[in-house]
Amino acid sequence: MTSVAPPRVAVGPEPAPFAVDAVTAGGGQVVPLGEEADALVWLSPRPEDNELLRHALAEGPGIRWVQLPFAGIEHVVAAGIVDAERAWTCAKGSYAEPVAEHALMLAMAGLRLLPARIRATSWGEQAGTSLYDAPVTILGGGGITQELIRLLTPLRAEVTVVRRRPDPVPGAARTVAADRLHDALPGALVVFLALALTPATERVIGRRELERMDERAWLVNVARGRHVDTGALVAALAAGAIAGAALDVTDPEPLPDGHPLWSAPNCIITPHSADTWEMVRPLLAARIRENVARFRAGQPLEGTVDPAAGY
Amino acid sequence: MTSVAPPRVAVGPEPAPFAVDAVTAGGGQVVPLGEEADALVWLSPRPEDNELLRHALAEGPGIRWVQLPFAGIEHVVAAGIVDAERAWTCAKGSYAEPVAEHALMLAMAGLRLLPARIRATSWGEQAGTSLYDAPVTILGGGGITQELIRLLTPLRAEVTVVRRRPDPVPGAARTVAADRLHDALPGALVVFLALALTPATERVIGRRELERMDERAWLVNVARGRHVDTGALVAALAAGAIAGAALDVTDPEPLPDGHPLWSAPNCIITPHSADTWEMVRPLLAARIRENVARFRAGQPLEGTVDPAAGY
Repeated sequence: MTSVAPPRVAVGPEPAPFAVDAVTAGGGQVVPLGEEADALVWLSPRPEDNELLRHALAEGPGIRWVQLPFAGIEHVVAAGIVDAERAWTCAKGSYAEPVAEHALMLAMAGLRLLPARIRATSWGEQAGTSLYDAPVTILGGGGITQELIRLLTPLRAEVTVVRRRPDPVPGAARTVAADRLHDALPGALVVFLALALTPATERVIGRRELERMDERAWLVNVARGRHVDTGALVAALAAGAIAGAALDVTDPEPLPDGHPLWSAPNCIITPHSADTWEMVRPLLAARIRENVARFRAGQPLEGTVDPAAGY
Repeated sequence: MTSVAPPRVAVGPEPAPFAVDAVTAGGGQVVPLGEEADALVWLSPRPEDNELLRHALAEGPGIRWVQLPFAGIEHVVAAGIVDAERAWTCAKGSYAEPVAEHALMLAMAGLRLLPARIRATSWGEQAGTSLYDAPVTILGGGGITQELIRLLTPLRAEVTVVRRRPDPVPGAARTVAADRLHDALPGALVVFLALALTPATERVIGRRELERMDERAWLVNVARGRHVDTGALVAALAAGAIAGAALDVTDPEPLPDGHPLWSAPNCIITPHSADTWEMVRPLLAARIRENVARFRAGQPLEGTVDPAAGY
């Protein structure tokens, strides 16, 4: 493998040192954006920088592979940038650990009534619900779900996974196809959203789905705000149709000041902080290093995007 | 075993049906408090009922075994009720699962900044700390610690256990004796208190211990409020000497209205609700059933109290 010439990898929009180091560690040679680049490592998560990305690709006709820095790539797909002419990889799976940890934290905090406990200024009554032996449902069958199941295993949670194709997920009690979502909602103590955003999964949780959830159930969203019909969620929380919602992502996002979710007593909002940049940077560096080495060796890349599926 | 006559077990202060059922399921015969009782299952967790317990023992000279309903028995020991003439068992170990779960929830909620997130009415900045690969220190080596280690295992937390006798705890990276507590505090991201309250462990966390903790560290107490010097904790939180404290138990308890801990922005307080009665009842029933069967068969009982050690 080391006898193959190093691939020439551009890093944009700016050559951040951690990414330059990762490319080099993977056996690549860092080159400027432009004609000589064989590959592009893109670091900006901002949709506002999509035009810069489009420009970098136009300036680099030799780019045969693009590494994106995030797991959810819907805004790049929607902008029509992801093409079938080159290989595209993203960070899917890479950030599964901190995101799954955040999802578990949100579920336990809701079930143990932390919104009320943290606002309290007086001793309260004993109350709360344990996750031990509890039925939970997870939408999505990717890396976050697999890691979340690992974290739930010592709690003996009974996991139902709902995913596009019902290929069994290791550790899940059952895996069902997306068209059986409505059967997987009643009885679940927690419904976790950990799926990719595509036209088929936008507003996958709306009024009818919230109605099928138990009154004691919490909804935990660590995927994308647009998976949930926010208006229906506000109504369900106000009516006590579900016990609560814990959201790391919202629609709209950022959630504007004065939005009714800010004052809902049974809603926990974290500002898209399941995977902070500090947590993510070493994980992204590892993926860049690994994929540069695989690209150089002609091996299959990790986190390959399927342009047709949109994730 | 079934050929042995059923032990005659009194249930007090009132014969609650779940406990009567558990005694019967264990092969015991429920009898009134009084002369015929061979054993006593005591159900009141209230220190105010200690005199009732003393009275029941005086009325039952044949009682050779007493089952207590809680894990921490310090108030019964302090009242001089626990004697060496009969066998005493408590619920230690029985409630380990919900208490360990609560401890993990409190730690993750603190590290992920839930006190600020839950009070927020505006979108915030990404911030928070992950438990993956983090060094943590647990005081106590009993059932809660062992269960907490199971929950921390998928997070690859590096656990140091501090306990009276440094017998290694399975799953811990290291186990040290109580006299090395000061070495086990620096560097820990979380310091968990999960030990019994005895004269030797009262105020085990005071000013000097808080000074040895990292500024980024959280203190999580699911044991007893009197393990912590509350005044020193209030000062440490105000000074930012530690990142925060998450307390299921306080000193005094209940924490009075207006106490400075209620207004500390980096303090989470839950009202001794790690193990609610709803969570505990089936676990206590299982212990009663098991111990009645063991008592009948002449086998060692579970959760035996050491009157000299005080737990």
